[in-house]
Amino acid sequence: MVAKLWLRFVLLVSGTVLAASAYANFPSVPKETYKALSLEQSATPKQLHDALSKRYKDPAQGAGRGTLAQYWEPIPFSMYMDPASFYKPPTSMKEVASRQECVKCHTDESPVWVNAWKKSSHANLDKIRALKPSDPTFYKKAKLEGVENNLRSMGRLGAGEKLKEVGCIDCHVDINTKKKADHSVDMRMPTADVCGVCHLQEFAERESERDTMIWPFKTGWPDGRPSHALDWKANVEVAVFAAMPQREIAEGCSQCHTNQNKCDGCHTRHEFSAAESRKPEACATCHSGVDHNNWEAYSMSKHGKVVSMMGSKWNWDVQLSDAYSKGGQTAPTCAGCHMEYEGKFSHNMVRKVRWANYPAVHGIAENINSEWSEERLDSWVKTCTQCHAERFTRSYLEFMDKGTLHLLAKYQESHEVVEKLYKEGLLTGQKTNRPAPLAPDKEMFAGFTQLYWSKDNNPAAIELKVLEMGENDLPKGHVGLAHVNPGGYTYTEGWGPMNRAYVEIMDENTKIREMVALQKRIDRLEGRRTSLLDIDSPSDKISIGGLGGGMLLAGTIALAGWRRRDKSGR
Amino acid sequence: MVAKLWLRFVLLVSGTVLAASAYANFPSVPKETYKALSLEQSATPKQLHDALSKRYKDPAQGAGRGTLAQYWEPIPFSMYMDPASFYKPPTSMKEVASRQECVKCHTDESPVWVNAWKKSSHANLDKIRALKPSDPTFYKKAKLEGVENNLRSMGRLGAGEKLKEVGCIDCHVDINTKKKADHSVDMRMPTADVCGVCHLQEFAERESERDTMIWPFKTGWPDGRPSHALDWKANVEVAVFAAMPQREIAEGCSQCHTNQNKCDGCHTRHEFSAAESRKPEACATCHSGVDHNNWEAYSMSKHGKVVSMMGSKWNWDVQLSDAYSKGGQTAPTCAGCHMEYEGKFSHNMVRKVRWANYPAVHGIAENINSEWSEERLDSWVKTCTQCHAERFTRSYLEFMDKGTLHLLAKYQESHEVVEKLYKEGLLTGQKTNRPAPLAPDKEMFAGFTQLYWSKDNNPAAIELKVLEMGENDLPKGHVGLAHVNPGGYTYTEGWGPMNRAYVEIMDENTKIREMVALQKRIDRLEGRRTSLLDIDSPSDKISIGGLGGGMLLAGTIALAGWRRRDKSGR
Amino acid sequence: MVAKLWLRFVLLVSGTVLAASAYANFPSVPKETYKALSLEQSATPKQLHDALSKRYKDPAQGAGRGTLAQYWEPIPFSMYMDPASFYKPPTSMKEVASRQECVKCHTDESPVWVNAWKKSSHANLDKIRALKPSDPTFYKKAKLEGVENNLRSMGRLGAGEKLKEVGCIDCHVDINTKKKADHSVDMRMPTADVCGVCHLQEFAERESERDTMIWPFKTGWPDGRPSHALDWKANVEVAVFAAMPQREIAEGCSQCHTNQNKCDGCHTRHEFSAAESRKPEACATCHSGVDHNNWEAYSMSKHGKVVSMMGSKWNWDVQLSDAYSKGGQTAPTCAGCHMEYEGKFSHNMVRKVRWANYPAVHGIAENINSEWSEERLDSWVKTCTQCHAERFTRSYLEFMDKGTLHLLAKYQESHEVVEKLYKEGLLTGQKTNRPAPLAPDKEMFAGFTQLYWSKDNNPAAIELKVLEMGENDLPKGHVGLAHVNPGGYTYTEGWGPMNRAYVEIMDENTKIREMVALQKRIDRLEGRRTSLLDIDSPSDKISIGGLGGGMLLAGTIALAGWRRRDKSGR
Repeated sequence: MVAKLWLRFVLLVSGTVLAASAYANFPSVPKETYKALSLEQSATPKQLHDALSKRYKDPAQGAGRGTLAQYWEPIPFSMYMDPASFYKPPTSMKEVASRQECVKCHTDESPVWVNAWKKSSHANLDKIRALKPSDPTFYKKAKLEGVENNLRSMGRLGAGEKLKEVGCIDCHVDINTKKKADHSVDMRMPTADVCGVCHLQEFAERESERDTMIWPFKTGWPDGRPSHALDWKANVEVAVFAAMPQREIAEGCSQCHTNQNKCDGCHTRHEFSAAESRKPEACATCHSGVDHNNWEAYSMSKHGKVVSMMGSKWNWDVQLSDAYSKGGQTAPTCAGCHMEYEGKFSHNMVRKVRWANYPAVHGIAENINSEWSEERLDSWVKTCTQCHAERFTRSYLEFMDKGTLHLLAKYQESHEVVEKLYKEGLLTGQKTNRPAPLAPDKEMFAGFTQLYWSKDNNPAAIELKVLEMGENDLPKGHVGLAHVNPGGYTYTEGWGPMNRAYVEIMDENTKIREMVALQKRIDRLEGRRTSLLDIDSPSDKISIGGLGGGMLLAGTIALAGWRRRDKSGR
Repeated sequence: MVAKLWLRFVLLVSGTVLAASAYANFPSVPKETYKALSLEQSATPKQLHDALSKRYKDPAQGAGRGTLAQYWEPIPFSMYMDPASFYKPPTSMKEVASRQECVKCHTDESPVWVNAWKKSSHANLDKIRALKPSDPTFYKKAKLEGVENNLRSMGRLGAGEKLKEVGCIDCHVDINTKKKADHSVDMRMPTADVCGVCHLQEFAERESERDTMIWPFKTGWPDGRPSHALDWKANVEVAVFAAMPQREIAEGCSQCHTNQNKCDGCHTRHEFSAAESRKPEACATCHSGVDHNNWEAYSMSKHGKVVSMMGSKWNWDVQLSDAYSKGGQTAPTCAGCHMEYEGKFSHNMVRKVRWANYPAVHGIAENINSEWSEERLDSWVKTCTQCHAERFTRSYLEFMDKGTLHLLAKYQESHEVVEKLYKEGLLTGQKTNRPAPLAPDKEMFAGFTQLYWSKDNNPAAIELKVLEMGENDLPKGHVGLAHVNPGGYTYTEGWGPMNRAYVEIMDENTKIREMVALQKRIDRLEGRRTSLLDIDSPSDKISIGGLGGGMLLAGTIALAGWRRRDKSGR
Repeated sequence: MVAKLWLRFVLLVSGTVLAASAYANFPSVPKETYKALSLEQSATPKQLHDALSKRYKDPAQGAGRGTLAQYWEPIPFSMYMDPASFYKPPTSMKEVASRQECVKCHTDESPVWVNAWKKSSHANLDKIRALKPSDPTFYKKAKLEGVENNLRSMGRLGAGEKLKEVGCIDCHVDINTKKKADHSVDMRMPTADVCGVCHLQEFAERESERDTMIWPFKTGWPDGRPSHALDWKANVEVAVFAAMPQREIAEGCSQCHTNQNKCDGCHTRHEFSAAESRKPEACATCHSGVDHNNWEAYSMSKHGKVVSMMGSKWNWDVQLSDAYSKGGQTAPTCAGCHMEYEGKFSHNMVRKVRWANYPAVHGIAENINSEWSEERLDSWVKTCTQCHAERFTRSYLEFMDKGTLHLLAKYQESHEVVEKLYKEGLLTGQKTNRPAPLAPDKEMFAGFTQLYWSKDNNPAAIELKVLEMGENDLPKGHVGLAHVNPGGYTYTEGWGPMNRAYVEIMDENTKIREMVALQKRIDRLEGRRTSLLDIDSPSDKISIGGLGGGMLLAGTIALAGWRRRDKSGR
């Protein structure tokens, strides 16, 4: 009855899905992934898991320590962030235990994780089998059958065998094993491919982020990023991460960048409550803070506030696709919007990415009106029109894009001013007191490294300010716009702080240039009467820098150097 | 038995109310409003609605684009923020639909808003009629009868007719219409006067904010403000709002300043849950942030925390006046305190305003001990003594007032220092690089505009700092005091940040003046030996400012200009 | 079966506890407290309460206005923060009322506090007596019997008498009194020792913080601190608290520092819900903010978020020791970890303190690997291994310690740079415009006082920056580490802001030293040609400072002074 502008897309996509589902065991897995893996969509679970795991474990395709491995060493806690690379079974534990003994002993040793597990679906498979269609979690019954189908395909479950439980031993040693396990030999921390043996659909969907997050135009981001599927690679291949001697600080980034490696970032062990992971707070610990304040922007928006006010009356146990219709949900959650794509829900959360949180990254703003970006905007329109009119939605998305471009322009104007100072060598201490960053980094202007590494006058204060403007304030402003939080882009975050940074940058720029002018007047006054020898008298030597560096610089020599160059330039 | 100091006010007010209620159809509407509308309190619903609507729609009394209309243009999304001025029915929608067809089609088109509506009282009028006195929402029955009485008075409901439902068509086309509606002709976005046809009492109470928020003494705020009733006018008549070319950023302010225009800021469409709007989070999205952090101050206070800890056990469905007695509430909410006035609750939320959030606004602090202010303080005492002893209450309110005055004094000391620099022309770039703001603004010192507009050295960094001190830190400190949040006025917000701003301002002041002294020494050294011609040699020309401005200033010319004036001043 | 490294401690401590419990009426009270009070552990309730109260009320041991009493005066509201020192019965209230009359009259006068009380255990003692073992709050029955035992020991309850209720009169006049009370004579605000008559165990546990928070090595903190038991003393003996003329701002600190004086900081009057006080939000109002953001760090961590997502399904009415096993809790709360010590729960919350939130306090970092600190770390391991493996726990605690040391080093490097400027007299205005702080303070460098007191150029901006780095950013970083919140130590708080502060400090350091070099060049240019008389010509006089100070300084005289010293130094 209504001619929505994007109807053509619906038809197009429905056609694709229908065509695919005729063959596909996992119709929710994008065809891009099958193509990347050189698989037919009719691939068996085993074929799919094998192909996914092979890529997943391949260092050349993002597994492990990355291309900067030579620059950094793991710390003891690293084994829990990248188990595949660093976990070793505990040598101090000699116990050999059966499936039942694991649970029994750990009920004393670490009672809460056992309690949590006992609440989980993992410990209650028979309850799932007994679910009635009227139960809001009835969908889990089919999901369990799917899991068993996967296990059978992979030869881990007999033809008529039912999975009795998923206990400690299944995830931490071997799925559905009947043997005893030796702590000091057999223990593992489950990586995503281990979870993916049973939860193959979810693993495949998550891994598909690599294949759909393909920038059609050149940006500062490589293909496959940003994504959860390659977030560990994104972490360990950052120069400052590798360079920092303060490993525990650097590994703070790792604490969130583990989704590539394991699934418990969103699915808290050992209850693994699906209801929990549907709640917005599940995303908050990582998607928050100074440079990606998605949580703050959302939770303070009307959307977020309605969820916090009314959510206790909704049924979070229903699956996402039933949340509005059967769960009673009337406002959007993180998962509700970001896991949705063309009316379906999956663990690929980046299929509608357009701005990727960071408008200053090269190439993104330039292409925001490309066909690729417009198609993704159309997909967003479908998401939003579950609750809003299309005209409302499109006018707001235009608002978001234009608002982001305003923020970007303010940043760019500031950046140009500071970069000009840098090019002229006028940043504080630039010629006298600016040590090179640590390898693998090299001298840079307003680079990411300087958010976490500094020494003496590298970076200069104004340089860090414009860097933070682009890395923090601008993303926050965009994120505020994207989550319909006016304070998040106009006054508290975004424009207000960017206006402040601009003002401070302009103020400093003027002062630096006035100081240069003043120095020239003094140079001229000193004229021929003053010899360099005189200036360099020991009593004028000043020490700049503090602990560690021990740098003793003859500041006036440096100033004299400027003067000399300046004079030769006349 | 107890001789409360304010008993005289109780008697006085009770008398007034009793006298009024003998005649009034809407006793909760203040007599000031009847007077302003030249109505008797015995006015019929139709008379009251007509008079209110006439004023509400009058551009001379605050409706629409305001006195700065010539300076700004709406953007597409503006139609949803000020529908009366900008909304047009969608030309792409040709459907003509009956009451039932609206719901039917939108169940597919925008299912969630239909779901939300189905939960609303609007969709369940018969359930309301069937409420038993024991039901906590029984009060809604009388409210519905009142609504029908209003509709009958306005000729929109037959004498014996009952309202069957409030569906899409009633609000978006015409209340209780029996006709079909044409999307492209008949659609409207409901403005407050539309809601006010049924909810006349609430509309009148809300509109009464114009009439009771009357400053008895001259302040920087006009009569009727701050208020929800004129918050749109307050928005569009701000010079920087009108001046900014970045319309999407400016319209960020509009996103909250829509209460004048429509009711869904607090009553989220389309469930319009009264229980929701009673919760503190309902106010949070707007009443939060860098310059009016009411939410942060409250929600982190013990008051707010008790609500978040214990609120799940309270019955939020009871009306506000029953919240403590029947709802089990034991700690205050936004609505509980701010909608209360002399023991009654209404949609006029500004009857106890004394500081209006902004202690630096001219006139407010000066009059905080006036009789007018003291009477409002007495009204607060009644609010607080529901839970606290009078002596406790009065000593805390004195604490709040005195604390606010301390904050104000720290700001004023800082302001004076920076203003002196401005008067002496010593702010960074003040004489060389300070373009005028955009019309309708003119050159200003530390004016509101500079929070959102900046160019080159307008404003100077120290100037913006003192502006933010008065616009952000001082209000936050006061708000922290008002909401009994010690970190909100002593260390995290308020005094701590103001101490920091003061220190930075004093530091900069000294540096600027030392630099002036230094320049004078150089002037003197250059004395007669240096001709202006020499100084203006091309190689000394410096460029200040970046993108867009394209300003190329001979900084030394400007400096020379200072010198010249300076010399002539000797 | 499992050889935990700390098993020796378990055995050791169990042995101690068992040995103690054979004699002790209150086995949860540490032996250190009995020793400090010169009591046997077999002391009667009366003996214990008498000894505790005597110490509690002794000004020489921390009661009352403290050693700086001469410098400050209370304000009216102070009577509610330190009732023992400042509360007086209200002279305006002449009513004499019985137990029943209190309740009756206050049902009208202050209905909500009566409502809250009616929900409390205090008003429902018979319900507690009737609890069945299956009830999650069954533990309260034994607790009530203990209370009655205490009252009998203290002669306040007859041998066969049962306590009927705890009403207004019991706490505000006299426990279990049968007399009428005169408001103007008998009223009191209950101090902790009053609560401790009934809740002796909790009072004693809380008071034991004085005895167990003993630093075995010299630190900047005295014995017994930090603790709740001496938090008032910690407040009033801070010089800036005593010195500030802005009493309402200073008393903002007092608002939280009242746990020494009374119990309602955590146990909100008048419901005194134990379930409430177990929730993390109960600690939030005080343990939050710029210099001790425990709440922000925790609530944004995965731990905190799981509590907020899943907590509504847990039973908060069970006692802490049953929270995981019977309450269904699966993630940690403030109380759950900080009230636990060696498997037992008590109101002593500082037995595992190692870093005390403030890594820059002298002595703490130096001793973090001492045996004392290692033992406390072992106690933490027991806490964490309720949910985590020991190797996981130990590697994370090592992560926390090392991360904190990295943060500390960055601070120390910055501090050294600024202190050097101070020692050389180079801070802005240091020689011209730096008034002494108010008594009892004296001239200081980067001292706590300067967070709240400033005048003219005391402190300098760079000095305040490094002070805040140590007082705010460093503690926040540590707290983020301690609460497993990566953004809390790496980017949003902690390292990121400290990197920014370092950069700004280094930038300013270079500028100050470049300016000094410039001034020397001018000095040299002025050489013998310029007499001091010439420099001091009236037109060069500059005014520094603003309101209040009225300081008029001949800036150039001061500069001349520098020069002179400088020259003489050659």
